Amino acid sequence: MPHTLQELAEVTAARLVGDGNIEIKKVASIAQAQSGDLVFVQDEKDLAQALASSATAVIAGEFANSSTSTKPLLISAYPRLAFCSAGALLHPPKTYPAGVHPTAVVHPSARIAATAAVGAHAVIEANAVIGERAHIGASCSVGEGVAIGDDCDLYPCVVIYQGTTLCRRVIVHAGAVLGSDGFGFVRDEKYGRYQKFPQVGELIVGDYVEIGANCTIDRGALDKTVIGAGTKLDNLVHIGHNDIVGANVVIAAQTGVSGSSEIGDNCVIGGQVGIGDHAKIEAGTMLGGQAGVLPHKVLRGKGQLLWGTPARPLREFLKELAIVSKLARRKERD
Amino acid sequence: MPHTLQELAEVTAARLVGDGNIEIKKVASIAQAQSGDLVFVQDEKDLAQALASSATAVIAGEFANSSTSTKPLLISAYPRLAFCSAGALLHPPKTYPAGVHPTAVVHPSARIAATAAVGAHAVIEANAVIGERAHIGASCSVGEGVAIGDDCDLYPCVVIYQGTTLCRRVIVHAGAVLGSDGFGFVRDEKYGRYQKFPQVGELIVGDYVEIGANCTIDRGALDKTVIGAGTKLDNLVHIGHNDIVGANVVIAAQTGVSGSSEIGDNCVIGGQVGIGDHAKIEAGTMLGGQAGVLPHKVLRGKGQLLWGTPARPLREFLKELAIVSKLARRKERD
Amino acid sequence: MPHTLQELAEVTAARLVGDGNIEIKKVASIAQAQSGDLVFVQDEKDLAQALASSATAVIAGEFANSSTSTKPLLISAYPRLAFCSAGALLHPPKTYPAGVHPTAVVHPSARIAATAAVGAHAVIEANAVIGERAHIGASCSVGEGVAIGDDCDLYPCVVIYQGTTLCRRVIVHAGAVLGSDGFGFVRDEKYGRYQKFPQVGELIVGDYVEIGANCTIDRGALDKTVIGAGTKLDNLVHIGHNDIVGANVVIAAQTGVSGSSEIGDNCVIGGQVGIGDHAKIEAGTMLGGQAGVLPHKVLRGKGQLLWGTPARPLREFLKELAIVSKLARRKERD
Repeated sequence: MPHTLQELAEVTAARLVGDGNIEIKKVASIAQAQSGDLVFVQDEKDLAQALASSATAVIAGEFANSSTSTKPLLISAYPRLAFCSAGALLHPPKTYPAGVHPTAVVHPSARIAATAAVGAHAVIEANAVIGERAHIGASCSVGEGVAIGDDCDLYPCVVIYQGTTLCRRVIVHAGAVLGSDGFGFVRDEKYGRYQKFPQVGELIVGDYVEIGANCTIDRGALDKTVIGAGTKLDNLVHIGHNDIVGANVVIAAQTGVSGSSEIGDNCVIGGQVGIGDHAKIEAGTMLGGQAGVLPHKVLRGKGQLLWGTPARPLREFLKELAIVSKLARRKERD
Repeated sequence: MPHTLQELAEVTAARLVGDGNIEIKKVASIAQAQSGDLVFVQDEKDLAQALASSATAVIAGEFANSSTSTKPLLISAYPRLAFCSAGALLHPPKTYPAGVHPTAVVHPSARIAATAAVGAHAVIEANAVIGERAHIGASCSVGEGVAIGDDCDLYPCVVIYQGTTLCRRVIVHAGAVLGSDGFGFVRDEKYGRYQKFPQVGELIVGDYVEIGANCTIDRGALDKTVIGAGTKLDNLVHIGHNDIVGANVVIAAQTGVSGSSEIGDNCVIGGQVGIGDHAKIEAGTMLGGQAGVLPHKVLRGKGQLLWGTPARPLREFLKELAIVSKLARRKERD
Repeated sequence: MPHTLQELAEVTAARLVGDGNIEIKKVASIAQAQSGDLVFVQDEKDLAQALASSATAVIAGEFANSSTSTKPLLISAYPRLAFCSAGALLHPPKTYPAGVHPTAVVHPSARIAATAAVGAHAVIEANAVIGERAHIGASCSVGEGVAIGDDCDLYPCVVIYQGTTLCRRVIVHAGAVLGSDGFGFVRDEKYGRYQKFPQVGELIVGDYVEIGANCTIDRGALDKTVIGAGTKLDNLVHIGHNDIVGANVVIAAQTGVSGSSEIGDNCVIGGQVGIGDHAKIEAGTMLGGQAGVLPHKVLRGKGQLLWGTPARPLREFLKELAIVSKLARRKERD
């Protein structure tokens, strides 16, 4: 659905230079832009290329003020962020017609909002609650008593166990499993066998959380696993039982967090990071890809980038890599 | 369903101090316990807090013998293990009414025990066998000729390929894929293309195995992949083709085992561990998180904790970390 | 379906020594072979064992020319490759009767080839196109406008998002998610929240690609994610948005590639490797298990095996391991 540059200027809070009636159809990269497209320039060095492209309009930083191009501009202090807002307007999330697909299997005690959409072959168990305008994708399974808040969007084949609550506007990508049993076993030394520790807690997922494809998040053993509001998980991330993940945390793909750990607000965690059980990571800490945090570690890294296993300040880790490399080369010469 | 302290004393083999007629509704953590709850204390230092909590009764070690509290006690040499047994009694696994859901698609040649429960939208292919009291969750897919033993429990969206046998009381969490094709390709150097090596073997999963959400276990190429009885896999674990995993092995989340490796009985493998192909890990070895075992390595580590890549004794690895850190700091001072 | 040795000699381009009318039923390992089986020997040292086995015939290298055994032989310069070809003949992929299962939900605008097979509970959305002889497994979800080429085979519970094209003969194992949203968020520093970067690009999967169970491949943000022809991904692999993976690349289990990276043709990537965003890996590079490639790194490793994080030549990395180990031991003695 096209929108005018005037509308886009409003939604992005950008200053429009050019004709506000011009219509934009979609966002694009500079390299692939065609007529009707909107592109963005974060760095001044890319401005000329954007202006020379086939795009109809360009979002750019203040550096574009002095441009003499006739191409319409949306000037913003935060071009990339403005581009996100423009993208959200031009490419709104897919909407689904309200109602329950005739092939879905819904327990009579489940309460499904009149505006919610339940897809083909979905299964909604007893006492589950589906909020207004929520969407349950094809072949999803929503367990007994699960609460799905307003405007949540579940892609196909998501499985949600009993004991899980999704707050509002949560997006769950395909194949994710939420609220599964935590990994808790106690060895019976007499027989050499493991007995299952009770896994009867809950999982609470805050507003605006986005969960990637094939992620797994276990519910608490006795208490709660919590994912704070605004937190974003990439694909194949594992969050263990009793973990408390703060608000606005970003976790890249294939990272795993063992049970009973805490990740403070605004942390940025790279891909394939491993965090041991009962660790505490200070708010605002950044962990590089493949870093490891030991069990029970209290990691203070606010505003710092840590790397390696055990995770340590980047500068320190790089120095260690350098000295080892040097020693190995010197040894070779000897 | 509540149970009396007397019943709990019996199932946990604990000594009851207090009124055996008191009813317990559920297990809880000390912090969240309410009236009707049972908590446990593993370490004496936590006893006072448990006794001061709202819990109705406390499982504790022998150290509680001298307590003068009026709160009922269940005294056990293994409090945590007793708590597991109590939890199993108070929170039995969900049971499902026997029968095949009308939306399930079952091949006429499949044999489904009268006491088994097949969920909505499940698909059971030709000649599959489903044992007594087994549960096949919603949207599961059970391939041709697959055998599912008595009392197995498959959560939704589990996919089981042809050639797989689950013995008894196996629990498979949502989204796991069992018996998939192993990763075997042979490069045709003439054309630079890969040809698929035959993947026509089997997968045998022993009694009492528990498999986490979104795990993948490949069946053998020509022979068998085997998961020994009592072994527990956390979420997102990968087991390659021809692997022989012993009995009562514990493998934490996101660990991967390449093909044709052997893991001995009673090993404890941390999260994100990588084990190369054709490796052999001695029974009773412990591997710390993110450790790596090289292909074809014969790793003797019975009763030891190994760490790092390549995996080596923890003490050795820690010394290496320390010396490198020291050298880097000294270099900085120079 | 049995085949004669003559047929097998033709399909493997091997030289037959023995009676071409003998029938072979299946491939097997030497250890498990029975009458009617075909085995292969890659290394001369295993020839005697193969000849002494119960197998009916043996594929072997030129070294078998001087054998005096009466067991029929198929002599090939590439025994393992010949065994693949024989396996493909003896164990052809399962075929499915053409047609749409009555429980599948197919949008009227979808175009499904008359020879395609759509399984139980599958969902095919508007304007999707399913090619000749393609198979869509049970409970798969094929998004709006998705194109599935001829002879593709999707195992159960595969989810394909809008914007995805599978070329021909693509195999997708169970639980894989293709075309999911890339992980792109921009922090709004004013509110400390993340906004979603537009994820409106495409995913193109080339001919003969095989994708393992529970893999996740994101579509491009604005442009395309591409998986080149003939490339093989093991289970639980993650490919980020905008990645360009070349042709005939092999990627082992649990490896993750961040967004906007390029992997050249014929690379061989081990398991649990992590590749940062915007990296470029030269064609023909080999990366050992758990290796890491830093963001924006241009990695030249054609014909070399690189290991460690950051990935470096194997020999260099081994030297570093050795010198560190030596220093730690010396320190201990001091």
